[in-house]
Amino acid sequence: MAATVAVENLNPKVLKCEYAVRGEIVIHAQHLQQQLQTQPGSLPFDEILYCNIGNPQSLGQQPVTFFREVLALCDHPCLLEKEETKSLFSADAISRAKQILSTIPGRATGAYSHSQGIKGLRDAIAAGIASRDGFPANADDIFVTDGASPGVHMMMQLLIRNEKDGILCPIPQYPLYSASIALHGGTLVPYYLDEKTGWGLEISDLKKQLEDARSKGIDVRALVVINPGNPTGQVLAEDNQCDIVRFCKNEGLVLLADEVYQENIYVDDKKFNSFKKIARSVGYGEDDLPLVSFQSVSKGYYGECGKRGGYMEITGFSAPVGDESYAAYKAEKDGILQSLARRAKALEDAFNNLEGISCNKAEGAMYLFPQIHLPKKAIEAAKAANKAPDAFYALRLLESTGIVVVPGSGFGQVPGTWHIRCTILPQEDKIPAVITRFKAFHEAFMAEYRD
Amino acid sequence: MAATVAVENLNPKVLKCEYAVRGEIVIHAQHLQQQLQTQPGSLPFDEILYCNIGNPQSLGQQPVTFFREVLALCDHPCLLEKEETKSLFSADAISRAKQILSTIPGRATGAYSHSQGIKGLRDAIAAGIASRDGFPANADDIFVTDGASPGVHMMMQLLIRNEKDGILCPIPQYPLYSASIALHGGTLVPYYLDEKTGWGLEISDLKKQLEDARSKGIDVRALVVINPGNPTGQVLAEDNQCDIVRFCKNEGLVLLADEVYQENIYVDDKKFNSFKKIARSVGYGEDDLPLVSFQSVSKGYYGECGKRGGYMEITGFSAPVGDESYAAYKAEKDGILQSLARRAKALEDAFNNLEGISCNKAEGAMYLFPQIHLPKKAIEAAKAANKAPDAFYALRLLESTGIVVVPGSGFGQVPGTWHIRCTILPQEDKIPAVITRFKAFHEAFMAEYRD
Repeated sequence: MAATVAVENLNPKVLKCEYAVRGEIVIHAQHLQQQLQTQPGSLPFDEILYCNIGNPQSLGQQPVTFFREVLALCDHPCLLEKEETKSLFSADAISRAKQILSTIPGRATGAYSHSQGIKGLRDAIAAGIASRDGFPANADDIFVTDGASPGVHMMMQLLIRNEKDGILCPIPQYPLYSASIALHGGTLVPYYLDEKTGWGLEISDLKKQLEDARSKGIDVRALVVINPGNPTGQVLAEDNQCDIVRFCKNEGLVLLADEVYQENIYVDDKKFNSFKKIARSVGYGEDDLPLVSFQSVSKGYYGECGKRGGYMEITGFSAPVGDESYAAYKAEKDGILQSLARRAKALEDAFNNLEGISCNKAEGAMYLFPQIHLPKKAIEAAKAANKAPDAFYALRLLESTGIVVVPGSGFGQVPGTWHIRCTILPQEDKIPAVITRFKAFHEAFMAEYRD
Repeated sequence: MAATVAVENLNPKVLKCEYAVRGEIVIHAQHLQQQLQTQPGSLPFDEILYCNIGNPQSLGQQPVTFFREVLALCDHPCLLEKEETKSLFSADAISRAKQILSTIPGRATGAYSHSQGIKGLRDAIAAGIASRDGFPANADDIFVTDGASPGVHMMMQLLIRNEKDGILCPIPQYPLYSASIALHGGTLVPYYLDEKTGWGLEISDLKKQLEDARSKGIDVRALVVINPGNPTGQVLAEDNQCDIVRFCKNEGLVLLADEVYQENIYVDDKKFNSFKKIARSVGYGEDDLPLVSFQSVSKGYYGECGKRGGYMEITGFSAPVGDESYAAYKAEKDGILQSLARRAKALEDAFNNLEGISCNKAEGAMYLFPQIHLPKKAIEAAKAANKAPDAFYALRLLESTGIVVVPGSGFGQVPGTWHIRCTILPQEDKIPAVITRFKAFHEAFMAEYRD
């Protein structure tokens, strides 16, 4: 008899994982994209716009030249011995590559490294953290990872022993957390971000959810905070962060700080503070608060999602100030961040100008999470189509405009409210068309379903 | 109260993982290496020789030029538009890079890809498999991974539901398997490779171990086969492989084939056959045998451990035949493989010429796994030092020669037998010195402990 590997006999924890940012809507979009190739003109739009995932370079954002120069030189060090290289690469990229290679045993980028990552790289990361926060950082506390997600999985794997171990997670949250907790057999303990206060984090709600979980016998082990927020895009205020670290200390919780959007701040009245800096500022040392922070090369202004780089514990990025490439580097960096800020504002305004849509300010990250106040008739139509109302709306949006967004139900939301998550990443020259197409769709949708 | 994250409250499955190739001996070696830097001449040797892990480039193996040229060009595609590039890179590396980039949406190597990996890359892998095996392969069956290990973890995670799910593993085995099974909470069902028949795989023993496990209520779900073997270096005979696939079909087992050493064959009378080719040859289609095969860019002649590349399902590698770089590529490839074969033979002969050591032929992979027949006095001394006899021997070897090997107890071995795993990777000009140092140590050791 042949072995059957089927849904019935697979690890149910794996089957429980859901990942809305790559879910039904996206799969449908890929089919429509094939249809556009095979039958051009067969759809009311001529391209698919992927606003479902924070993947800047797939939408045309160009990588930062300096990083790619250094990467190419480190991958093929023979170039460093050739004269022509000087005319192809900037001088500081050449010296940075030499400096990085000098920290790698045998200059062997093709060798297994220390399990935590190359010591020289961790030294540079620790130095960047220290200069950003004004508090010391230790290379031994840095764990280089291939993106932030593997670090999150590692921590969940380490902390979760069984289904009685709970992790406090924001709702809405990025599905990585619900998926990872499910995968490792723990319990997600939700706390709700307050949309009325710009997706604020209320300690009172944290406290309530924690006590509620403990009363059910859940051993709550950690608190996940995403700052700047995903999918909500808010930036936490400093005093709010202080309350959070005190809450974690007093309640004996590990603080898991997702800080991958620390470079993505779009408002002048908010700034990013790492939770490590906040913890040290209120006088907490290592013994007072177990704190894991996640950083990634996929976000920020670098957006190198495909290169799979990240760290556990906070990391900084040292710009080649004053060197030949610096002007170009600075211009590219500022250009990307300023453009993202303009795109965020344009989309936010557009959403708020539409009937039945209210959208909080995009303070940071790469997303807007507008609330769609759906008419009863639309909710009934969704029920008839056996879909969540926001999924029904997103599917209709895709089919009539080619714009791919993620239904709020994929992130969690206050019951009875409906949202979509839309990235701000389409290139700037495309934003007006995105807005026009969205507006036309939404007005037609409301006209069709208005109560 | 502050949270305490301590051994007592961590996931015990994580704590159960052991990884001998990076274990006590290696940590001790790193300390000795620091001592050599701070106090040169303070040890009876002037360098540490890491024979513990299959990490060729850390020991001086140079990467294949063509691969690194293509990689650098894909990292920094701007180079492709510059005239000077033609004088720095081979023409076929340039065209290969262009061809690869053309298969990547938006040429964006910095973008998240399809979850299975870029379709164009999977097409190339499938074509390589088909041309190697003479049987069709499908890009949809290929899952690109960052090395073979993550693929193995994924399969264990998918197959293992609880401690009653068992996985048949060879003993000796590479500790990735015991670690991954422990991490995912399953049961390792051991079968012993037969040292007398050159680490042969006896179906009768497989059958016995399977029935024994089933009688204990274990639901044995899969069979792991490592071919060429690690740490044992044997290459399975074709008829043996046929018996294995029939065994898996008849017993309803998933066959997990670790084939990462498929390019590393050092004897003329053996050749590599993929289990997929064998299964198709005996007439088994997909429905007859669930077969997962693992491949990695870390092994073979490429040895790109640090680049983290691999695939689930078998993969081939298409050489740029006939192109400008081919002669150089071929020379580099053949040079690496022929040198590895000479090193394997030299070390194997050296081991067999020593009192109390017997070493099977190194047919493939990157390792020798000699049996050390330790005198009673040595075993008692080990017990007094509270160490496994082979760990005691390996520690003494390190301390007097700087040669780092892994004790057989880290891989599993027939009770009462003792082995060490030694890689064949020190560069060829160092091999005579390795042998001399090893010989001197071993003779002194035997003189000290001979019964």
